[in-house]
Amino acid sequence: MKNSEKKIRAAKFSIVTALSLAVMKFTVGILTGSMAVLSSAIDSMLDILMSGVNFLAIRQAEQPADENHPYGHGKFETMATLIQSLVIGGSGVWILIESVRRLAAGAAPTGLGSGIAVLAFSVICSWAISRYLLKVAKETDSSALAADSLHFSMDVYTNLALLAGVTAMAFFRLYWIDAVLSMLVACYILYEALKLIRLSLREVLDEQLPEPLRKQVEFIIKQHCGKKYNFHNLRTRKAGSHKLIDFHLTVCKKLTVAEAHQLTDKLEHEIANAVQGADITIHVEPCTFDNCNEEDCGGCRR
Amino acid sequence: MKNSEKKIRAAKFSIVTALSLAVMKFTVGILTGSMAVLSSAIDSMLDILMSGVNFLAIRQAEQPADENHPYGHGKFETMATLIQSLVIGGSGVWILIESVRRLAAGAAPTGLGSGIAVLAFSVICSWAISRYLLKVAKETDSSALAADSLHFSMDVYTNLALLAGVTAMAFFRLYWIDAVLSMLVACYILYEALKLIRLSLREVLDEQLPEPLRKQVEFIIKQHCGKKYNFHNLRTRKAGSHKLIDFHLTVCKKLTVAEAHQLTDKLEHEIANAVQGADITIHVEPCTFDNCNEEDCGGCRR
Repeated sequence: MKNSEKKIRAAKFSIVTALSLAVMKFTVGILTGSMAVLSSAIDSMLDILMSGVNFLAIRQAEQPADENHPYGHGKFETMATLIQSLVIGGSGVWILIESVRRLAAGAAPTGLGSGIAVLAFSVICSWAISRYLLKVAKETDSSALAADSLHFSMDVYTNLALLAGVTAMAFFRLYWIDAVLSMLVACYILYEALKLIRLSLREVLDEQLPEPLRKQVEFIIKQHCGKKYNFHNLRTRKAGSHKLIDFHLTVCKKLTVAEAHQLTDKLEHEIANAVQGADITIHVEPCTFDNCNEEDCGGCRR
Repeated sequence: MKNSEKKIRAAKFSIVTALSLAVMKFTVGILTGSMAVLSSAIDSMLDILMSGVNFLAIRQAEQPADENHPYGHGKFETMATLIQSLVIGGSGVWILIESVRRLAAGAAPTGLGSGIAVLAFSVICSWAISRYLLKVAKETDSSALAADSLHFSMDVYTNLALLAGVTAMAFFRLYWIDAVLSMLVACYILYEALKLIRLSLREVLDEQLPEPLRKQVEFIIKQHCGKKYNFHNLRTRKAGSHKLIDFHLTVCKKLTVAEAHQLTDKLEHEIANAVQGADITIHVEPCTFDNCNEEDCGGCRR
């Protein structure tokens, strides 16, 4: 299956999961009248919205380059990641404030009653989809799916903290456990959200690709290069799952355009094979020797 | 003066203006005890913050490309514009809600007392700096300065609406004028903020340059091209004041690399002269005729 199909399928799964959880929670919440389950259902509604935005962004990001977006639509995914991470970070801050408030007020979680099974089931579903999304995110190098995965993890950890708090209250009468656990969860969420915000900001600001990827590209180019003159001005950036790369390649000035192009085609092909989603532009420059032969100028040879 | 210096100077002017206005308003506000002037002073404090962010972003955007940001730092300006437009848009929504509330409650602006001269003076200063910023923004194609200019305009129009409201109340006892004027101002602010948000989102999403600029680039390339094969894959995008351009150029395959490079250098030079802040990468391709002479393949000739 192509990466773009994988990403879109994962984004669809994420919406369907959020939708099923919301429907289930609403049904159980209304039947049992549990406020905890109902408020969790409202949470899931927001998840549907976020997963929906993600789905649209990923579908858009996978559209091929067109006249209006000649470098492809990868940055749509970047923006979706940025927005989703900001919302997740905001939720983290809110949970933090709320748990400090509860700790100060000495408030304990109210009984979950019949809703406890529903929340436990929802935790399992969220955990499974979160793992799956993270796996696809890593396979396809998709920051938007990573953000979606974090979003589901948030539900897992907050609900686990809530369940642990209720248990601790029932058995040990430790009223502060829930608030303290929530705080820890909030700190973890904030930490992960900030990582994602940083990641998407890097893409927005056209920062270069990570060191290992650049080294790989450099290695491939160098394999074809002579000693003295080879390549310079290697520029790289990322847009969603696309990696945009361009550089200047110095070859013997006596080569014909056809010969030089054969070489650049080969390089483009090899880099594209090694770097998933690479888009390569090579600018050829002639060596500057007055009177060179290929051995002297050391430019790239076939 | 170089464009980057112009931009940085304009951003500095903007901070100094906001700072002077804030100091003046605080002094007069404390001396006269006018709440209207004091709240306007707090407004100016926020202006200092926004202008400060803008100044830092513009200074960063004018840094030359380095290893970490190989395509330059133009996108820093884009992000500053996006953030500033979002804040301005938010303020617009707030003014709109506030004026609807005031209209519903029938509340009229309270007397400005001795502060009226201060506000009038501040309106004139804000208007002058806003014009100046807009002029430099157009000259240097800087979206961040355009956002800064809109920010000062907002103060001009809201303060004018406030002054008009007070006057209308004093002379004609029309208590609703102030709220209605504020609403109109809010709508205008929102309209301008949305335009700027759209503009900066286009840059973030790597949308192509506007039609006239592309036509100009195409015109320059075509002047040097033959009839059958010339150029394709023209890709353009914008990052702050930088315009990033790349395209494929088909030339006769029998040309040497040195000859082809002379041509691309010339093209790059001419495009850079015509398009302010252009960064051009040309990928040369050979014509595909089996047996061509320059006349046949029509590739670019010197």
